[in-house]
Amino acid sequence: MGDVDSSPVDADPDPDPGRIARTPEPPYTAVIFTSLHSGNADGYARMATRMFRLASEQPGYLGHESVSEREAGITVSYWTDHTTAAAWKQVAEHLVAQQRGQDVWYADYAVRIATVERDYTRADSVTSNTGASGGNQG
Amino acid sequence: MGDVDSSPVDADPDPDPGRIARTPEPPYTAVIFTSLHSGNADGYARMATRMFRLASEQPGYLGHESVSEREAGITVSYWTDHTTAAAWKQVAEHLVAQQRGQDVWYADYAVRIATVERDYTRADSVTSNTGASGGNQG
Repeated sequence: MGDVDSSPVDADPDPDPGRIARTPEPPYTAVIFTSLHSGNADGYARMATRMFRLASEQPGYLGHESVSEREAGITVSYWTDHTTAAAWKQVAEHLVAQQRGQDVWYADYAVRIATVERDYTRADSVTSNTGASGGNQG
Repeated sequence: MGDVDSSPVDADPDPDPGRIARTPEPPYTAVIFTSLHSGNADGYARMATRMFRLASEQPGYLGHESVSEREAGITVSYWTDHTTAAAWKQVAEHLVAQQRGQDVWYADYAVRIATVERDYTRADSVTSNTGASGGNQG
């Protein structure tokens, strides 16, 4: 390992891409996007970076989490409500990316629009486990 | 359980682990589990395989999707309702796995319990795009 990984290509503009989103108290909207990759990833990484940045500029955007394997990926984006999530779907540049996704990158995908009603983190669990058992079961 | 668990290493019992779940018409419950890996994966793969199998035997289980990178993972499990999802959280063997996850495998994680109100797949989008535009915006 040299000094740092000053990776020339992936100058990632997002300091924390796809890690755990810091969302507010529920309720809020989650859009769960599960995809099977076609095997043709030409231009995909560039588009993904661009779309995450564009999404983050939209009204109602709360954050996103994204994990990808060779064959499949899951991206969850969080929004204040269904209206802002739906508005993002209609943003012009995003429409183009969706169409290209359909045509080129994805063998299949599913989109699920959901209302998050409860959430907790590792820190919450550790706290609840040291206190009363049963924890934050809602 | 008789002489199960004879799987020495990765004799994957799940023919389609973590691909796109075939869920029924909404509404149903999604449990979104996002994790940051600690770097210690000892026993993790075995536990994960075992937990997916055990989950699939629980009342109300509809399917799951799971994608993992070196540093992070997202698993979404689908349930008929919040009650069956909460019951799974309390299954004894799962509790042990959760505790071990907290102690060993995960640097951090978030769990979000959500109601899926709308969903569509690639096939739906292709259909709607060839028909009227605007599609299944809900």
